[in-house]
Formats: sequence, structure tokens, C-alpha cells
Amino acid sequence: MLTGIQSTGTPHLGNLLGAILPAIKMSEAPNLESFLFIADLHSLTQIKDSEVLRKNTYSTAATWLACGLNHQKTIFYKQSDVPQVTELAWYLSCFFPYQRLTLAHSFKDKSDRLQNINTGLFTYPMLMAADILLYDATQIPVGKDQMQHLEMTRDVATRFNNKLGDTFAIPDAIVHKETMLVMGTDGKKMSKSSNNMIDIFLPDNALRKQIMKIQTDSTPVEEPKTPDNCNVFKIYSYLASDSEVKTMRKNYLNGGYGYGQAKQELFELICRSFEKEREQYSYYMNNFAQIDSILKGGAEKAKAVADPMLCKVRGKLALKIN
Amino acid sequence: MLTGIQSTGTPHLGNLLGAILPAIKMSEAPNLESFLFIADLHSLTQIKDSEVLRKNTYSTAATWLACGLNHQKTIFYKQSDVPQVTELAWYLSCFFPYQRLTLAHSFKDKSDRLQNINTGLFTYPMLMAADILLYDATQIPVGKDQMQHLEMTRDVATRFNNKLGDTFAIPDAIVHKETMLVMGTDGKKMSKSSNNMIDIFLPDNALRKQIMKIQTDSTPVEEPKTPDNCNVFKIYSYLASDSEVKTMRKNYLNGGYGYGQAKQELFELICRSFEKEREQYSYYMNNFAQIDSILKGGAEKAKAVADPMLCKVRGKLALKIN
Repeated sequence: MLTGIQSTGTPHLGNLLGAILPAIKMSEAPNLESFLFIADLHSLTQIKDSEVLRKNTYSTAATWLACGLNHQKTIFYKQSDVPQVTELAWYLSCFFPYQRLTLAHSFKDKSDRLQNINTGLFTYPMLMAADILLYDATQIPVGKDQMQHLEMTRDVATRFNNKLGDTFAIPDAIVHKETMLVMGTDGKKMSKSSNNMIDIFLPDNALRKQIMKIQTDSTPVEEPKTPDNCNVFKIYSYLASDSEVKTMRKNYLNGGYGYGQAKQELFELICRSFEKEREQYSYYMNNFAQIDSILKGGAEKAKAVADPMLCKVRGKLALKIN
Repeated sequence: MLTGIQSTGTPHLGNLLGAILPAIKMSEAPNLESFLFIADLHSLTQIKDSEVLRKNTYSTAATWLACGLNHQKTIFYKQSDVPQVTELAWYLSCFFPYQRLTLAHSFKDKSDRLQNINTGLFTYPMLMAADILLYDATQIPVGKDQMQHLEMTRDVATRFNNKLGDTFAIPDAIVHKETMLVMGTDGKKMSKSSNNMIDIFLPDNALRKQIMKIQTDSTPVEEPKTPDNCNVFKIYSYLASDSEVKTMRKNYLNGGYGYGQAKQELFELICRSFEKEREQYSYYMNNFAQIDSILKGGAEKAKAVADPMLCKVRGKLALKIN
């Protein structure tokens, strides 16, 4: 199994509940060899500021480690630490029709502002194909938006195999069950671009401030409130135990319980629920050398898989490296 | 100075006189560090048969070595032996607009048969830019058809420098003086695609057969002939000394001298002129291990230049390899 993770910013509560924690749970299945990489080469298609790139990589790595990723079991590495992937991407791109690539969603979605599209963004599905095929990965968890790109991976692998004989295993998509929809501070889906996130890794004060900004209606403190219409209550429900949820529901319905109090309880719940994760995150963010060392170990394991595969591909192309 | 050489077939007399021999002469200039590489990664955009790819690489290398390339002075290597170039190509492609790439001649010329264009063919100018920038090459001999691609190299290097600070030297084109037009066996420009070549490296019999096929008019042996309209005479003039040319001209004008005789003289002249080259070519084609060893030595020297450059680029992108 292989998963690439974007490194375009520090993961927020929505990423954690919707993607990271379920993925870590999945990676713990016995008898499963899994690869997890920080897709920093892909990030380059969007971010050109090296300081931002660097910080994003560290905060992404720190998040996964803080959330309990077992980097002994899962091969955890930085995409750019195994640059062999770019070599494979070149080979693959010689076997894939230009016209099919113009149909990729990642490209078509942006075709109304073509002048902003760089070549890397256009050829990105070839790098993604190389990410997968280089590690002989056969199970690829994908969201709906990535289904087509995985189809391109299957296509280019098949074309290569047909021309030069069996080389690549054809990977299968593992389609995510509907991932948990996590609501943001404005009631819409939590996302970086909507700027409605809860960043659980912020220091207490800043985190509390974010929570206090959750939008509510203006029902006065003393009146009863409708919990199921309230963003605070909804976010609280993601994390609280059944009995905690029941208690807060009662408080809402009874009246005499203000949104400020609810927000304070949510803040405390987040701090309690992610106490270990926040502590660990802060630890890693102060110990980049340790992150480097973990990622280096992962890259070595990844290369041990990638090198023989690349060697096989070169052999098929009669490109024995001197 | 850096030059990439296509490896899409055994070079013929036209390639030799028009490109290879002048390039070797140019490479002998003192105080000039020059790079010459067999562009086998580029060949992949056109050729998928590994046996053909392999044979083309060896015959191209054998030709240059047989023609006297000094591989001690010139860094002579196979493009695929320094796969770092594909990594740089990825970085560059994130800095180059997709739309500009659609304007590349190499792509536009084929836009009437888009369904045959692979992604590699489309992104080829990015690999070419990486070929040049990886070696900090500043003087690039180009024909007219490559001027625009070199302009793209200059463009992407400038964009990168502007975003991330001075990294690449901006290369200059050295525009070929009108290269010698070598006529083929049918009076048109000699080229593989016209199938009118003289392959000087063929065995005697096959070479003689090619020469005997040169098209002439049907003036009978005994009548005078017009040397300047005759393909045999023209090809003979490329190689013969002034006095030899004068003698043949007299024979033509006098009559009693058949085209068969002229062809035989041309055959003998080619054998004589390229005696050493043909012998050496045959030697190398029977000693692939020696070619491998020479190209390996070249790749090592090339890497010694490429690695620090790639390191610098990664540094600018904050992608320190673990």
C-alpha cells in the first residue's frame, strides 16, 4: 500500500479526523507493507518559496509522527529523498499520449486560467504514476478526485508492459469510504482555503482564540438553544464521549448555558484529547534533526525497493547504467 | 560548450561531413571544456525497441570515436548514465508555463497528428534545458531548428534565478555557420528519412552497392558528360583533392569515361579517405566493452560537474537530500 501526503501546510483538525488518524489506523494492519511519503516534489508545482516548502515538510512529518505513525513498520520518507522517481517519470512519459494528459482533472479544472499552469502541474500524473510503480505498490487508497489519475497510472503501466514485457504490477484503487466530513468554524467543510480551520497544534492562546471565533447565532445566554444547528456543538461531538455529548445537549436545551461556555468546553476537550499529540508535535518541531533522521531511515528503506525496480526498467529499455 | 547528439541510427556521410567532423575539430580548441553526450533519453521519445536503442547508442559512440574524438579532452557520455538530469528537468518544469511549451516547434510541427505525440515529446524542451543547465554550459552550438528550444532554456533559467536567486548561468547560442549541404544518392539532401544515404561504415560490398545506385542520367559511355550536374561527381568533390577533382572533370568532359568508372573511383576514394575511420569503427563495434568503459569514464567526469550543481539547486529549493 502506498500513500502520498500533501505538504502544503500544517494539517488541521479536519485533516486529522478525516484522513491522518484513519490512515494511521489502516497502516497498523498486520501483513501489510506500507509506504507513506511526503509529496514535496509535487508541492513544487504550487509553492516556490523554499522557506515555506521546508516548514511545510517538517510540520507535516511532525504531525504524522505526533499522531502515532509507526515509522518502524511503515516506510515513511520524503519524496525528494528518492529522486529516482523523476527518472522513472521520464520513461513513463515517453509511453503516455500527450492528449490523454490534457484530459486530467488536475489540469482541466484549471483550464480557465491556463496562463497560471506550469509544466510540472500538467505532467503531475506521470510523477504520480512513477511514485506508485517505482515501489511496486498494488493498493492505492484514493479519494474520488484521484481515481482518474490512478487510471492513468494503470494505463501507462499497461502500455509499458505491452511494449517491453511484464515489468509493472497494475495497481488497484482502494476507494475511501466516504471520509468523515469535518465542519469548520463557519459551518462549511473545514479547509485551508476557506480559512475556517482549527489548528490543534497551535499554542493554547492562539488555539483558544480560533475556537472562540466559531460562528454561532445570537441567542442570549439564558434562552434554550438548538444543539444540532450549532457549529460548536457539532465540532464538540466529533471528539467527545457519548455521555459528554449528552450533557452538552442537555445544557443547550435547558438554557442558561452560553456559547462562550460551550466554546471553553470544546477548547478544553481538544487540549485533553490531543494532549499527547500536541506535546509530541511540539517536541518534533523543536527537533528537526530527529525528523531528518527518521526520514533518512525511511528513504534508505524506500531506495532498497526503488533501486531494483529502476534497474529492471532500465534493463527493459537497454539503458544499463555504466 | 555542450552538444547533444541524436542516436536514432548509424551516422552517414552527410552527418559526418556536415556535423561530426566539424564538431570534433571545434572540440579540439585549446582552453575549451566541452561536453558531448549521446541523447539516448531523448531517443526514447521516438524509439521503444530496446535492441534498436542499444545498437544506435553503440554505433553513434563508435562513429565519434572512430572519427577521432578525443575522449580525454572532451567529456563524452551517455545521457542516461547521468539520470540526475531528469531530476533537474522536474524542478525546471515547475517553473515553466505550460502554454509556452505548447508553442515549441518540436510539438507544433506535429500538431496535425497529435494522437501520436507522447508526453515525453511534449516536455522534451525541459529535458534539453536540464541537459544544458546541469553542466553550467554557456556555449551551445545550435542549428536554426533548435534556436527556440535554447530560448526556452534561457527563459526557464531566468525564471528560476528570479524566484530563488542566482543559480544558473544563462547559456548563449552558437549558431552554426551554414552547415555543408551533402547531397544524397538521388541528388536531394542526404538524410535517413529520404533513404538516399552513403553509409561509409558498411562492409565494402554493401558500400559499393550503395554507391553504384547513385542516380545518373543515361548519357552513353563514349559521349562527353556534364560533371556539375552529376551526383557522382558532386559527392566525389566533397572528398577528393583539387587535382583529383580536376582529373575527373577532364574525364567527364572528354567522353569515353562511364558513370560506372566514376562510381568505382568514388568508392575507392571513400575507402581510402575513411580507411582509418572504418577500421576503427569496426574495431569498436566488435569491442562494446571498450565503448562502455569510455562512456563510463565520461559519465564519471560529467557527474563530478552535475552533482554539485544539482546540490546547489536542491539547496535553493530547501530540498536537502537526507
